[in-house]
Amino acid sequence: MSSPSFFLELTVRDYECDMQGIVNNAVYLHYLEHARHEYLKYKGLNFAELTRDGIILVVKRSEIDYHHPLRSGDSFRVGCLIERVSPLRFAFVQQIYRLPDLRPILSARIIGTSVNRSGRPFLPDKIDLAFE
Amino acid sequence: MSSPSFFLELTVRDYECDMQGIVNNAVYLHYLEHARHEYLKYKGLNFAELTRDGIILVVKRSEIDYHHPLRSGDSFRVGCLIERVSPLRFAFVQQIYRLPDLRPILSARIIGTSVNRSGRPFLPDKIDLAFE
Amino acid sequence: MSSPSFFLELTVRDYECDMQGIVNNAVYLHYLEHARHEYLKYKGLNFAELTRDGIILVVKRSEIDYHHPLRSGDSFRVGCLIERVSPLRFAFVQQIYRLPDLRPILSARIIGTSVNRSGRPFLPDKIDLAFE
Amino acid sequence: MSSPSFFLELTVRDYECDMQGIVNNAVYLHYLEHARHEYLKYKGLNFAELTRDGIILVVKRSEIDYHHPLRSGDSFRVGCLIERVSPLRFAFVQQIYRLPDLRPILSARIIGTSVNRSGRPFLPDKIDLAFE
Repeated sequence: MSSPSFFLELTVRDYECDMQGIVNNAVYLHYLEHARHEYLKYKGLNFAELTRDGIILVVKRSEIDYHHPLRSGDSFRVGCLIERVSPLRFAFVQQIYRLPDLRPILSARIIGTSVNRSGRPFLPDKIDLAFE
Repeated sequence: MSSPSFFLELTVRDYECDMQGIVNNAVYLHYLEHARHEYLKYKGLNFAELTRDGIILVVKRSEIDYHHPLRSGDSFRVGCLIERVSPLRFAFVQQIYRLPDLRPILSARIIGTSVNRSGRPFLPDKIDLAFE
Repeated sequence: MSSPSFFLELTVRDYECDMQGIVNNAVYLHYLEHARHEYLKYKGLNFAELTRDGIILVVKRSEIDYHHPLRSGDSFRVGCLIERVSPLRFAFVQQIYRLPDLRPILSARIIGTSVNRSGRPFLPDKIDLAFE
Repeated sequence: MSSPSFFLELTVRDYECDMQGIVNNAVYLHYLEHARHEYLKYKGLNFAELTRDGIILVVKRSEIDYHHPLRSGDSFRVGCLIERVSPLRFAFVQQIYRLPDLRPILSARIIGTSVNRSGRPFLPDKIDLAFE
């Protein structure tokens, strides 16, 4: 299995922790989304500009395995790799590792597509090419 | 397939929508968590009290299919049904339907377990009984 | 001093609490915003529609006194009263009280205005009338 | 007036923007809190450890002027300076500037104190010394 080809390094902020003293489950979705959007930027696609242009990237399915929780102040790496699933769908394979010990925190597979403002499938060439 | 036996009715708040004008993906995790915690309360288990007592309920895996987005002001129903997966694991089967047209918004399967403050498996009887 | 003429009743959700076991400061801003938007709806103004129409309601200043924290499961009332501050600015006077004991939780004064998509002052008649 | 002596540099993440396409008001509270906690760390105080030890730092009042909104991808600097207000209260004077043009985004004055788990004033020496 290949390693993610793109990654971000981030640190847990205190407001991201819940009453259990660990990062709340929903917050990992934010980390994963942020890494995907930075990855797209690296591929030449700006999520905010795409949205303004009526190209709406949406998540259709997410599968997440939570291995170990992150805590206040933990630094971590979010990786991101992309795979074509079908003509209209692509998958982001993402992992989170704690730093510096590389303890696995989370593995995710996020399947997305692109629609127009009416919700109809719409995959312009520039999206298509970024996913080659 | 059985219908969820417990549900909550909620309404989208404006701050839950992102720049696409739809509910951000991570926010659905909040809706689902809130419905699970209300369901536990209905079964006699208070998440905040359990946490204070060192019984830490954690999510191990989530599988979510996003069918259609919710928008500002939409009312919706979050359903919750529980299944025993193994001696130490249980699954919450959850759906979100828009109201009043019952359009399917999201289907989820959230697998959880219970650990102590050190992260070791710990499923006291009162948790066990609630999941019968 | 007059009492707020409009209020919402809400309940704290577990994900709104932070590692101190109390509602995180930023979350109160969400409660206050949600009450303001519901108040506007009651006055015939829909925040999401206004945004789509290029009428951008923005907060210019907030003053908040935090009297006592809310905790998991607490029910509370968010009140909202409006005052004209200047031709282009209006103030929302807001309080949060815990239920059922009416313990004061928070007092706020939120000053807002209305701008167009370029950030220039823009107060169409329908906004103006709602604030009479 | 003196300039903040401590600052953090951050970048807006897409999920922090709301349907207006700008950073939601409540999110600035997160930025400000994160800068305060990093500032405390720099002074030798760890917010999460203090919380575990029963030293609860709480916000009593916030005054925030919003000058200009931040948008997706904007980089910015959050400054933080501390002042003693009374034997039991201290104020964080905070500003946010956009980078690289240093456009003023927000000015804040956040007044805090320290309590024990029962909510009684409790300002141990190590807190007191950090605020000299």
